[in-house]
Amino acid sequence: MKVILLSGGSGRRLWPLSNDSRSKQFLKLLESNEGNLESMAERVWRQLREVGLSESTIIATGKSQVDILQNQLGTDIPIIVEPERRDTFPAIALSAVYLYSIIGVSLDEIVTILPIDSYVDNQFYEYIKNIENVLNESEASLALVGVKPSYPSSKYGYIIPKDVEAGKKIMRISHFVEKPEEAHALHLIEKNALWNCGVFSFKLDFIISILQKMNLPIQYEELLKHYNHIPKNSFDYEVVEKVDDIVALQYDGRWKDLGTWNTLTAEMSTNQIGTGVLGPNTLNTHLINEQDRPVAVLGIPNAVIVVSPDGVLVADKKFSPKIKTLIADISQRPMYEERRWGWYKVLDYFKYEDCKEVLTKRIGLSAGKNLSYQVHFKRSEVWTVVKGEGHFVLNETLQHVREGTVLEIPLGARHAIKAVTDLEFIEVQKGTELIEEDIHRISLNWDDILLKCSPIRN
Amino acid sequence: MKVILLSGGSGRRLWPLSNDSRSKQFLKLLESNEGNLESMAERVWRQLREVGLSESTIIATGKSQVDILQNQLGTDIPIIVEPERRDTFPAIALSAVYLYSIIGVSLDEIVTILPIDSYVDNQFYEYIKNIENVLNESEASLALVGVKPSYPSSKYGYIIPKDVEAGKKIMRISHFVEKPEEAHALHLIEKNALWNCGVFSFKLDFIISILQKMNLPIQYEELLKHYNHIPKNSFDYEVVEKVDDIVALQYDGRWKDLGTWNTLTAEMSTNQIGTGVLGPNTLNTHLINEQDRPVAVLGIPNAVIVVSPDGVLVADKKFSPKIKTLIADISQRPMYEERRWGWYKVLDYFKYEDCKEVLTKRIGLSAGKNLSYQVHFKRSEVWTVVKGEGHFVLNETLQHVREGTVLEIPLGARHAIKAVTDLEFIEVQKGTELIEEDIHRISLNWDDILLKCSPIRN
Repeated sequence: MKVILLSGGSGRRLWPLSNDSRSKQFLKLLESNEGNLESMAERVWRQLREVGLSESTIIATGKSQVDILQNQLGTDIPIIVEPERRDTFPAIALSAVYLYSIIGVSLDEIVTILPIDSYVDNQFYEYIKNIENVLNESEASLALVGVKPSYPSSKYGYIIPKDVEAGKKIMRISHFVEKPEEAHALHLIEKNALWNCGVFSFKLDFIISILQKMNLPIQYEELLKHYNHIPKNSFDYEVVEKVDDIVALQYDGRWKDLGTWNTLTAEMSTNQIGTGVLGPNTLNTHLINEQDRPVAVLGIPNAVIVVSPDGVLVADKKFSPKIKTLIADISQRPMYEERRWGWYKVLDYFKYEDCKEVLTKRIGLSAGKNLSYQVHFKRSEVWTVVKGEGHFVLNETLQHVREGTVLEIPLGARHAIKAVTDLEFIEVQKGTELIEEDIHRISLNWDDILLKCSPIRN
Repeated sequence: MKVILLSGGSGRRLWPLSNDSRSKQFLKLLESNEGNLESMAERVWRQLREVGLSESTIIATGKSQVDILQNQLGTDIPIIVEPERRDTFPAIALSAVYLYSIIGVSLDEIVTILPIDSYVDNQFYEYIKNIENVLNESEASLALVGVKPSYPSSKYGYIIPKDVEAGKKIMRISHFVEKPEEAHALHLIEKNALWNCGVFSFKLDFIISILQKMNLPIQYEELLKHYNHIPKNSFDYEVVEKVDDIVALQYDGRWKDLGTWNTLTAEMSTNQIGTGVLGPNTLNTHLINEQDRPVAVLGIPNAVIVVSPDGVLVADKKFSPKIKTLIADISQRPMYEERRWGWYKVLDYFKYEDCKEVLTKRIGLSAGKNLSYQVHFKRSEVWTVVKGEGHFVLNETLQHVREGTVLEIPLGARHAIKAVTDLEFIEVQKGTELIEEDIHRISLNWDDILLKCSPIRN
C-alpha cells in the first residue's frame, strides 16, 4: 500500500497563529510522547513511522509549505509540490501520476489518501492497513474509513450506508450528506451513518483511468505542465460522489478534527503557553502567547486568548469557529514565517505619508544555510548582525561577517549570506512596496555564488 | 488663590497602557471639546485655563513625568520637580515653600491642592473658587471639597460632618473614614457624609508654620537639599487628620475617579481605539489597541481588552480593579515612552544564552530637538535613519544625516543627534545590561556640543 498525505489549508480558522504560510498542522501546541510540544504534522508523521507506514508515504502540498514541512519532518521526506493550489483532486491526481510514472508503482497497488490533520491514536493507522484486504475482497472501486459518530455534529460530512448487517464493520455506501442540521444528523446516526474523515483508498489503476478518460496526461512531467487543466475540485466532488461501488470501514475509536480553537484547546495538556498570568475566574480559559510581552487575563472563563506576531484573538470558545468570517477582511502579510533557511519575525512596519515604507525584521539563519543571491529594485536594506558568524556577498565581493558587522545593501545591489554558525541579524528595509515579490533570485546554490566572487575581503 | 496641581502615581491600575513613565493621567482616551482624544492631564489643564485658574497654578511632580507633562501641556508650564518620590505631604511642602520663598507669595494667600485626575465638569473648578471666601469667613485652618456620594462606594474616603444644617453646603468636620464596607458607607451617607476628592485649601502660613514646627527649612533650595528628611506620608495622614478645625464644602455635581478600567471606559466616547474588530456578542466591551496588528474579539461582552507595547490585558470590567495585584510580579522596562525630545518604542528585546542582549527601538526625534551628547560603556549601537534630516556628532565630528544614513556607534563613543526636520531612526543596541542607566551625559545643550566639534563633514 502507498499513502498520499495531503497537506493543504490556509488555516484562517486558527488565526492569529495560523497564516498563509503557517497552516494549522504546523502549530506546535500538542504534547508529544516525550513531553515536548509537537505540531499535527509532526504527530501524524511520527504515528505513520510508528505503525510502519512512513516509508510508503509521499506528501502532496503547495510551494508555500515545502520549507516548513522540511523543517518539521526533515529534508529527506518525499514531497510532491503542486505548481499552484487547486484543491484535493488535482493534488491526488499529480501524486498518483508521480507514483505511476516516476516510481513505477504497479497499477494493482492500493493507494490510500490521508489528511494531515486527523487527531487520532496510532490504532487508527493500524486499522487503515485493513483497507487493502477490504478493497481486494469487496472488489469495490473505492474504500472509505467512516468514524462512528459520538454526537450529532453539524460540522461534518456523513457517509450513509446502503445496508448494515448487525455487528459488521464493513458496509456498502448509499450516498453522502454534507453538514446536516443537528436534528437531521441525529436521524442519520440512528441509521448507522458514519463521519467522513477524508480517508480514501483505491487501486492506482482507478485514478489513472479517470485521468485518461479526462484526456489528461499520465506522465508526471506532462501533468505538471497541464496542471491548470485539471478541474479545480475536491476529490469528494470530482470522484467519490460519481462512483457507485464504494465500501466503508467503520472505525470505532477516537477521531477528532482539531480545526478550530475550541477543539484544539481541548487536546492541549496545559492552559498556558508563553508569558502571562491567568487570574481569578479564568476556568477553562486557554492562553497562548507567542510574544515576549506579558498577557494578563482576569474574570474571563471558557475563552481562548491567542497573541502572535500576526495579531490578537480574544474569543469565547463556543464562538471561536466564527473567527474565519470575522477576520475575512483583515488582509495582512505574515508576521512570522519558517523557511528552509530558518525563520523571520516582523518587528515593525510603517508607511509614511510620502508613501515610503520601513519594515524591520529579526532574521535567523541556521548554520550551513544560505539566502539566495538576490536583488531588490524597490528597497535598500541595512543588516546588523547580532549573533553568529557567516559569509556575505555584495556585488560579487565576499566578506566575512560576525556579530556587530553592519551591512548596507543599496537598491539594485546583488547580495547573499551564508551562516557558518547560527546567525541572526536585524534587517531594516526602506523603500516602496516592501513585498516578497521584490526578491529577484540570481542563484540559490552557494558554490555557484562563490564562483562569481572576487577573493575574500576581511 | 494659588493652586498646586499634584501629578503623581505609577499607574499600575491601568496597565498595560500606563507604566512607570506614562501614568494614567497621560493616556489619551477622553474626547476633548474638538473631538480629538485628550488625556486627563490635558483635560484638567484645559479646564483650569477655561475657568481662569491656570495662571495661578504650579504642578508638583517627579522627574520621570517632566518630559511627558511638557509634551502634553507645553514647555512653559511651571513645574516643581520632587528630587525623589515621597508621597503627597513632601510634594505639597516643597511647592508651598517654592511659592513662599521663590515667588514671594504672601503668607495670607490661600493655597488649594488639586489632584490631576479628577474627572469633573468646569463647574467643579468654578465651585472651587468659593473655597477662598469660605476659608476666610469660617476662620478654619483647612477647607476641603466633599462630593455628595451617588452610591455607597467602598473605594473612597468619607468626610464625616460634625453637624449639618439642612440645605447648608458648608459644614464642620468630625472625622474621616477610609474605604468603609458598603453597608457602613450607606450608614455614613445617611448621616450626610461626603466623598473626599483630594481637594484641600489653606493659608500659605498654615503649611509654612507646620514645616517650621518640624524644624524643616522654609527656603526652597534648602528644602530641596533636605527633601529626604520630610516624612514620607500623605498630606491626609501628616496634616489633615491632625487638625481640628476643618470645614468642608459640599459639591453636588459630577465627580469621578477614572483610576480603573471600568470607570475609565465608562467615560470613553467610542468602544474601539486602534486596529481590530469587535465581533458578535461583544456588547459593552471596549478595545484599545496601540499596536499595528489587528485584534479580533468574539463572544466576550462587558470586557476591556487593551493591547500596548507593554503587554495585553483581557479583563471582565468588574474584575479590572484587581489588575494591580495580578501584575505585581510582572516587572518590565517601559516599552513606550514620551520624552522631551520625542518618543521611542521598543520593537524587540532578546537575551542570548551567552548573556549578550539585543534591543531594537524605533525612535522619533521632533524637529529642533536633540539627544544629549552621551556615552555608553556596555553597548554599541547602530542607527538607521528612516525619515527626516539632522546633524549627528560622533567623537567631536559633526555629520549631516538624512533618510538612509547608517550610523555605527561603538562602545565608548561620544555621540549626539539633532533633528532638523522630524527625524526617525531604527536603533539596534547590542551589549550587556541594556539599561537606561548606561547613558552617561556629557552635555545637553546643542550649542555647547557644536563648540566641541571639528568642521562639518558631508
